[in-house]
Amino acid sequence: MHNIAIYPGTFDPLTNGHIDIIKRSSKIFDKVFVGIAVSKNKKPLFDIKDREMMVKLAIKDLKNVECESFDTLLVDFAKQKNTHIIVRGLRVVSDFEYELQMSYANVSLNHNIETIYFMPSLENAFISSSVIRNILEHQGKISHLLPECVFGYIKSKGFVCT
Amino acid sequence: MHNIAIYPGTFDPLTNGHIDIIKRSSKIFDKVFVGIAVSKNKKPLFDIKDREMMVKLAIKDLKNVECESFDTLLVDFAKQKNTHIIVRGLRVVSDFEYELQMSYANVSLNHNIETIYFMPSLENAFISSSVIRNILEHQGKISHLLPECVFGYIKSKGFVCT
Amino acid sequence: MHNIAIYPGTFDPLTNGHIDIIKRSSKIFDKVFVGIAVSKNKKPLFDIKDREMMVKLAIKDLKNVECESFDTLLVDFAKQKNTHIIVRGLRVVSDFEYELQMSYANVSLNHNIETIYFMPSLENAFISSSVIRNILEHQGKISHLLPECVFGYIKSKGFVCT
Amino acid sequence: MHNIAIYPGTFDPLTNGHIDIIKRSSKIFDKVFVGIAVSKNKKPLFDIKDREMMVKLAIKDLKNVECESFDTLLVDFAKQKNTHIIVRGLRVVSDFEYELQMSYANVSLNHNIETIYFMPSLENAFISSSVIRNILEHQGKISHLLPECVFGYIKSKGFVCT
Amino acid sequence: MHNIAIYPGTFDPLTNGHIDIIKRSSKIFDKVFVGIAVSKNKKPLFDIKDREMMVKLAIKDLKNVECESFDTLLVDFAKQKNTHIIVRGLRVVSDFEYELQMSYANVSLNHNIETIYFMPSLENAFISSSVIRNILEHQGKISHLLPECVFGYIKSKGFVCT
Amino acid sequence: MHNIAIYPGTFDPLTNGHIDIIKRSSKIFDKVFVGIAVSKNKKPLFDIKDREMMVKLAIKDLKNVECESFDTLLVDFAKQKNTHIIVRGLRVVSDFEYELQMSYANVSLNHNIETIYFMPSLENAFISSSVIRNILEHQGKISHLLPECVFGYIKSKGFVCT
Repeated sequence: MHNIAIYPGTFDPLTNGHIDIIKRSSKIFDKVFVGIAVSKNKKPLFDIKDREMMVKLAIKDLKNVECESFDTLLVDFAKQKNTHIIVRGLRVVSDFEYELQMSYANVSLNHNIETIYFMPSLENAFISSSVIRNILEHQGKISHLLPECVFGYIKSKGFVCT
Repeated sequence: MHNIAIYPGTFDPLTNGHIDIIKRSSKIFDKVFVGIAVSKNKKPLFDIKDREMMVKLAIKDLKNVECESFDTLLVDFAKQKNTHIIVRGLRVVSDFEYELQMSYANVSLNHNIETIYFMPSLENAFISSSVIRNILEHQGKISHLLPECVFGYIKSKGFVCT
Repeated sequence: MHNIAIYPGTFDPLTNGHIDIIKRSSKIFDKVFVGIAVSKNKKPLFDIKDREMMVKLAIKDLKNVECESFDTLLVDFAKQKNTHIIVRGLRVVSDFEYELQMSYANVSLNHNIETIYFMPSLENAFISSSVIRNILEHQGKISHLLPECVFGYIKSKGFVCT
Repeated sequence: MHNIAIYPGTFDPLTNGHIDIIKRSSKIFDKVFVGIAVSKNKKPLFDIKDREMMVKLAIKDLKNVECESFDTLLVDFAKQKNTHIIVRGLRVVSDFEYELQMSYANVSLNHNIETIYFMPSLENAFISSSVIRNILEHQGKISHLLPECVFGYIKSKGFVCT
Repeated sequence: MHNIAIYPGTFDPLTNGHIDIIKRSSKIFDKVFVGIAVSKNKKPLFDIKDREMMVKLAIKDLKNVECESFDTLLVDFAKQKNTHIIVRGLRVVSDFEYELQMSYANVSLNHNIETIYFMPSLENAFISSSVIRNILEHQGKISHLLPECVFGYIKSKGFVCT
Repeated sequence: MHNIAIYPGTFDPLTNGHIDIIKRSSKIFDKVFVGIAVSKNKKPLFDIKDREMMVKLAIKDLKNVECESFDTLLVDFAKQKNTHIIVRGLRVVSDFEYELQMSYANVSLNHNIETIYFMPSLENAFISSSVIRNILEHQGKISHLLPECVFGYIKSKGFVCT
């Protein structure tokens, strides 16, 4: 069996929680594509080029992981990457309900789509991109919440953070 | 990569929801062990022999699926089956919270344990073993809620049902 | 249009929350049947005769409300009462998920079944039969949680309560 | 008894889930007013005229259903339509909590307001206006998620969709 | 022991629910600082000066309560006020999950931070600033949802409300 | 101000999560009474004498903490201990809803009762007495889930555990 999975997200920015799920997925699937949603509507803090760079830095040592941004429906991105397997993280109850709804919507668009879920490791249970953005806004400490290389990139971009 | 997954449960009885997750898992993993928990504490309606028979009947056409009952901790059963991957279904919010707690407890017992989750197909979203047991108690129709062979088995055991 | 609704429950015992929903339903429907589930499995504190008496006392001034106990599937009780409308109360998130599952199960048994839901009035939001049973166990005050006539009945049966 | 109910919403756009609840309500109540909230604050994708047209098209064969837009508090719209009964759909836990809060707020403004809730039919459980808007944004298939006449209207307005 | 607690919020506007928690906290702690978050990102309806005035009016008779606005991380405001105790209200499940996440994030920034939670009094269970803003938008009655002095202030500012 | 708080529970057995909340409470309140509910109805695994011993061992170094078992309503135990402050832990959404209901029920019995809540420290988020009992049933490792002295006590009582 040759399994390819897509792990989609906005990654604004990529967190320790994201990289944890990427690593765990990469042990289950033969290949993992990290799909970076352009998500203009969400008005991301980091533009798509920066988000791509952060993901690339974070995955550079993972042999069976690649990344690519997309600006289409997820089911169309999956078809283009020649897979029907989607990986998602579930942190909280509201995630759960949103993901349940999305998975049914995706299946209604492509009956073959299969979504599987990971829960965060305990130490990452509270980390989300929005928590990081909130702390960044007030120039607080974020270095313990995301991979070192991502932190370095954010710092190099002139965000004052400790 | 050779991935073996365990799908544990009490299967009291096995439902359409269970077999759906078994089939979907069997497309992702090289081998799936359905682990039937003896669960004496839960006072199952069907004894362990009947539950084993029902699972066996339901999986007999699935080449990479086997079943076995166990009466140990799940992490120990996984070790014995030489795997560290567990598959679980998530139907409702209370499932989600229970499963999150269990996954952390399991990881605290074996750091390598990995649990991945499937959500039910829409048509099975409301089906659970306890719903079936409730209907059985009043001799209502259950044939649309579980595999035909499981229904036949239950009927052959003298449960009056339509 | 002539609408008959069933309001099923175990009523162990009937609370201020229950009578509130009965009254509110009786203003929307032409007739309301309070269906008292025998529910042997739940091992009710009050036997079915006592629960029937309590409901009868509580509804005696409501012209379009009747009660009857039942020991069948709810969908069968509804058919027998010549209706397909079920009324349920929703107090908490776990109620919501349980009720959603039950409504799908009932529709799978009878496609015409329609269930509608009421939320409790604010002052009854925390009242449930199990809260009352817990307080009764320690002989605490329950008179503010159920209709006066139900309280009187419970007292007359020798339950020490204030 | 002559019961009039209001089914309020933004209907941006009207979905299969909405029309299902409208039809089911229209069997319980003598008349149903679909109240289209102008909801400028939510910055709807479709303007109020389009949303009115979509609702009108969707209900044109339902004899006891009418629609009207409103830009007031819901309790004031109810008074104007000479009713105190509100119908709402409940899809997910977060709906439930929001609706519970709203119902208490409405009762605090008018003690006679009564809100009753319907859960979605299973096949519509995942459909929401926001899911449709997300798919529309990427020109995906939406025709299975809303009434044919509403789909036709959206298409005629130049939205590219399949 | 000399305990100082911070009760942070946006208070846009201060409600009966807020003042209830302030009063209850002030009986447990020696001193309570109401911290008014500037929260520019949330685009508050009332500007920071108005929100400060409303809080000041509401607490003027509470001897051990003071207020101050802040535009930093909460953990930094706490340090500045020489305390590590934060008080929060919990009304609904989504509050609960958000607060759990925030408390872990805060502890990750300052290991000494302690957050304790109050649930609303029953009569305030449905009141939130956003409910009030929604009603205000349509010039509905809000006087029963916030302290008299806050209502007076809002009225004096030219908001038409009854 | 002299604040006394009660921390009630069944403590079947006392966990790392419990002792964490006891310690954190003891820094906020002048005195903390750990109230061990006899809870015969719950059929505890450990009898009340064992549970008392476990709590005593766990708190022996905490100067302002005492324990006592009780077999009354919590509000009556609070009165007897001359306090009206109750401390509770909140781990999951279902806890939250149960606790909200209980707090309203308690206030309905004694208007002065005040309940405040702590969330678990991240490392204890998944630990509960029932998780420990489940592991014990299969003789799994529990030593990392409860205080060393409690573990020693359980072992000395002949429970095989590692």
